[in-house]
Amino acid sequence: MTIQAIAFDAYGTLFDVYSIRELGDKLFPGSGVELAGLWRDKQIEYTHLRTLCSMYKPFWEITQDALVFSCKKLGLNLTLEAQNALMGQYARLQAFPENLAVLQELAKQGLKLSILSNGNAHMLQSAVESANMQGVFQHLLSVDVVRKFKTAPEAYQMAPDVFSLPAKNILFVSSNCWDACCATWFGYTTFWVNRQAAPREELGVTPHGEGRTLRDVLEFVEQHRNG
Amino acid sequence: MTIQAIAFDAYGTLFDVYSIRELGDKLFPGSGVELAGLWRDKQIEYTHLRTLCSMYKPFWEITQDALVFSCKKLGLNLTLEAQNALMGQYARLQAFPENLAVLQELAKQGLKLSILSNGNAHMLQSAVESANMQGVFQHLLSVDVVRKFKTAPEAYQMAPDVFSLPAKNILFVSSNCWDACCATWFGYTTFWVNRQAAPREELGVTPHGEGRTLRDVLEFVEQHRNG
Repeated sequence: MTIQAIAFDAYGTLFDVYSIRELGDKLFPGSGVELAGLWRDKQIEYTHLRTLCSMYKPFWEITQDALVFSCKKLGLNLTLEAQNALMGQYARLQAFPENLAVLQELAKQGLKLSILSNGNAHMLQSAVESANMQGVFQHLLSVDVVRKFKTAPEAYQMAPDVFSLPAKNILFVSSNCWDACCATWFGYTTFWVNRQAAPREELGVTPHGEGRTLRDVLEFVEQHRNG
Repeated sequence: MTIQAIAFDAYGTLFDVYSIRELGDKLFPGSGVELAGLWRDKQIEYTHLRTLCSMYKPFWEITQDALVFSCKKLGLNLTLEAQNALMGQYARLQAFPENLAVLQELAKQGLKLSILSNGNAHMLQSAVESANMQGVFQHLLSVDVVRKFKTAPEAYQMAPDVFSLPAKNILFVSSNCWDACCATWFGYTTFWVNRQAAPREELGVTPHGEGRTLRDVLEFVEQHRNG
């Protein structure tokens, strides 16, 4: 498998979605961790349900819906002020510390880089800017164009289309094991950034590579570049 | 909306999936509640992912995969014996206490009843038998036939097909709010048995009826039978 391009998942992979824990904990003392976890789970669940039912709605709105539900579920009083603060934080998530240097190194090696994300265009643009990643990616691919969220094949098809490459020649990198597994089914070469040392999903499919930070992608690419 | 038939979700609606908590707690003291919750969430997540990716696998196997993952995630040592015990329990879940009488009453009123479930045929047969519900349902509809799990339209289409009725003349009953919401999108008249007094999912759609037990379905049907 000769890797010529890389498609990165955004949320959780490049940008730390759990960094909103701190703000959550400030707004709802003692509930930040639980809120951040449930918010993330609900957000992904809603992308699945809406894709299965062909009821697409942009990720930004789904993220807001998931926040509202999560607060109701946890009995937290979400004022408009708190909602705006948390959503605003989502628009400028912290990047993981090693990311920028790794991306610059991969670009220097001549690999074509993109993001392939559920997030809609303005979210991706905003996240890339607050992480100082302007100019690193050739494409910010949002599933908003195909109106189906991952893990639908139409979503994964965007990177092969834009790079004019077979999926197997594109490395798909995600910190979400389910995303890396489903991308493997789709046909990508895949790498799971297992930041939390989580167990592998029991889906009967294994990402081609696994590491603990984005830095481990460098070694994988080195080994597989001209394989 | 003239209701002529009813399609019931099985797990959580007719059969108490959380009744495995007790066995879980016996096998893994102190972890029964957490295990049952995660097991259920993972099971549903895997049905979504496999349906989105066209990687169908029977619900029984997915249930087992979800159990294996959940134990790994929670650091519980799942012996083959414990796995068999928990899966065996899943095959003979307790029914909620009011269910049988309600179903018999609805049948007596001339309504055609079915189950419409992710579960495969042998699971549904086994659950119906251990709940003494033989003869109550005209059809045990398993998505195994269409090889797509709920909330895919192909799954929901099974009841209108088998009853030769438009979806709006069939009441779809589920204790899972996401299931009742997506069935509403599909076109059913819907009832959410909100056993845990949970907040409604933020999906921008509302089930037509809501109650706390299956008994509340009787009143809803009474009101809407000849509406």
